[in-house]
Amino acid sequence: MKIGAEFIPGLEGVIAAETSISLLATKEEKIVIKGYDLIELSKDKDYLDIIHLLLADQLPDQEEKLRVEEKLQDGYLVPEIILDIFKLLPKETHPMDSLRTGISILAGYDGQIDDRSLDATVHQAYDLIAKMPTMTANSYRILSNQKVIQPDRNLTYSANFLYMITGKVPSKEAAHIFDRSLLLYSEHEMPNSTFTARVIASTNSDIYGALTGAVSSLKGNLHGGANESVMYTLLEADSVSAYEQLLMEKLYRKEKVMGFGHRVYMNKMDPRALIMKQLLKQLCGKKGDSILLEMCEAGEKLMREEKGIYPNLDYYAAPVYWMLGIPIKLYTPIFFCARTVGLCAHIIEQYQNNRLYRPRVNYIGEPYA
Amino acid sequence: MKIGAEFIPGLEGVIAAETSISLLATKEEKIVIKGYDLIELSKDKDYLDIIHLLLADQLPDQEEKLRVEEKLQDGYLVPEIILDIFKLLPKETHPMDSLRTGISILAGYDGQIDDRSLDATVHQAYDLIAKMPTMTANSYRILSNQKVIQPDRNLTYSANFLYMITGKVPSKEAAHIFDRSLLLYSEHEMPNSTFTARVIASTNSDIYGALTGAVSSLKGNLHGGANESVMYTLLEADSVSAYEQLLMEKLYRKEKVMGFGHRVYMNKMDPRALIMKQLLKQLCGKKGDSILLEMCEAGEKLMREEKGIYPNLDYYAAPVYWMLGIPIKLYTPIFFCARTVGLCAHIIEQYQNNRLYRPRVNYIGEPYA
Repeated sequence: MKIGAEFIPGLEGVIAAETSISLLATKEEKIVIKGYDLIELSKDKDYLDIIHLLLADQLPDQEEKLRVEEKLQDGYLVPEIILDIFKLLPKETHPMDSLRTGISILAGYDGQIDDRSLDATVHQAYDLIAKMPTMTANSYRILSNQKVIQPDRNLTYSANFLYMITGKVPSKEAAHIFDRSLLLYSEHEMPNSTFTARVIASTNSDIYGALTGAVSSLKGNLHGGANESVMYTLLEADSVSAYEQLLMEKLYRKEKVMGFGHRVYMNKMDPRALIMKQLLKQLCGKKGDSILLEMCEAGEKLMREEKGIYPNLDYYAAPVYWMLGIPIKLYTPIFFCARTVGLCAHIIEQYQNNRLYRPRVNYIGEPYA
Repeated sequence: MKIGAEFIPGLEGVIAAETSISLLATKEEKIVIKGYDLIELSKDKDYLDIIHLLLADQLPDQEEKLRVEEKLQDGYLVPEIILDIFKLLPKETHPMDSLRTGISILAGYDGQIDDRSLDATVHQAYDLIAKMPTMTANSYRILSNQKVIQPDRNLTYSANFLYMITGKVPSKEAAHIFDRSLLLYSEHEMPNSTFTARVIASTNSDIYGALTGAVSSLKGNLHGGANESVMYTLLEADSVSAYEQLLMEKLYRKEKVMGFGHRVYMNKMDPRALIMKQLLKQLCGKKGDSILLEMCEAGEKLMREEKGIYPNLDYYAAPVYWMLGIPIKLYTPIFFCARTVGLCAHIIEQYQNNRLYRPRVNYIGEPYA
């Protein structure tokens, strides 16, 4: 053993991978994606640019971007059988679980499932990114007794996704705001779900397996599930004063308040949260109803003063999704869809330079000698 | 960061958990389970004893053991809908993938899915251990166009499992040998699949999610998939000399030879492999056909002399399963079923004393400053 027998809970600070994909450069306050600052990218790039950046190592020119869009549109449709299977699931199934079931089933349709070459895995990645919105929106529609909405390949990726969720073709502004959220969620170094995907991929297991593990991880309320918790708390309160009281009560009971803090940023506000806050302002202004913004700002102030912690992306993504008319149960699945491209990039990188993850333990059980 | 910026590929030697469940005590050459030596346990205990040991922290008395058996028998049946869904899957689906789909769907049937209390999770564990053989055997039967065989609660756990696989009520001897293999596969410290399950559970995600990730991990041919590869190689060779030649060719081409070596045992033979080798001898003796034993022993000798590495459990489990009439594609799913109890113990332990896994990376990509 190289590093002695010290147990580091949660592997905090342990370097678990070498990667050329991304870095949370905390000193420089940058989320670095392939050398670019994600916040800078968010100013004039969109989600399709990020897909190309993550899977082809550079930003696309116009022609390349068109090809990305075409590839995705070609993959929108999922086998009808999968929609039929969604109809057979218990209605209580969580949308993250139905999404996971869908990905798990897709594995059986891939004739190249055992091919770990770069070409094959990039192709699988595009196909999965293409199908994720169709499965997410429609598994939810089916489980909540709504009719299936097939993808419309005349819409942009983000507009089509929002259309399948809400049943209405979104305005350009709404589609753009939604696209911003996908871009901001696209990749974020080594959170638990990305780590899960790499750990699984390191057994030489396939991309479907690595992604089913990642969905399961992201479902946890200490990870992606946080954005749903944020919205339920906002709705439960329904006013600034009630929200402040609710947060104070949670602090008093030493409960975890979701949507605040982040192991890596620690004492700074997640720069992605700032952008979502701006978009929330924009949506509130347009609707002439700023109650959610006021509540969120009050909560932000309270948590900063009481605990010295700051909002993360989930905190401001939740009310933005609410204003866009997205059902709360889809917040975490959407986070997962957006992150699929980042996960795929990590899985592919793991295949290219692999070493099986196999750590050890400190045994603290019954003596055996 | 506590341990500096050194990247340790595969987290080799890194202590990723404190556990009272098990330890590979390499110096003492023991697989320790809750203070017991697994090899000692295998002499007069059976798989049900191990289930109780892992989930209730002690070996059961006779009455407790009966209750374990009853609890499992009560859980044997899976919802008919899940069998119907297996019928809708593409016939090319790998049995590990259909098993994963089944576990993923089961999540929707659990009204207590968000309960992380010890009682609730132990109950979920028993229910999953009970259903795993039914799903494994019957998803395979359905995908290979055979009729469903419902569990028979008058048979022991292992006999019933083997019965659903082969379609014949097994002899006492066959059931006992199969039970030995389940016992030996039951728990093994922190292999990739167990690590995957704990990483997922650390987000406070549910036991179904943690297990779907673990199936995906175990499917990889650098992990559980090895036992299938061993058998395909044995069958391809079909004689001692051809087998030796095949292994030499693999060594010459620097291909990984499956079924040999283990990161933790390194230069010793896996003590579980020794027991399976004895059982293989027993089966060969009874059948009056020792070709598989001779091939395996020749391979063992060759790999020891050429590479200084030793067989692991998969190496001798594969021919034993073959002699028991088990289809090769079920070897890894059976490994998973047997390991479910160990995985559940780790998931439950993780819930009891949790810290989210969230390591860091060394960024080696495009410069960003």
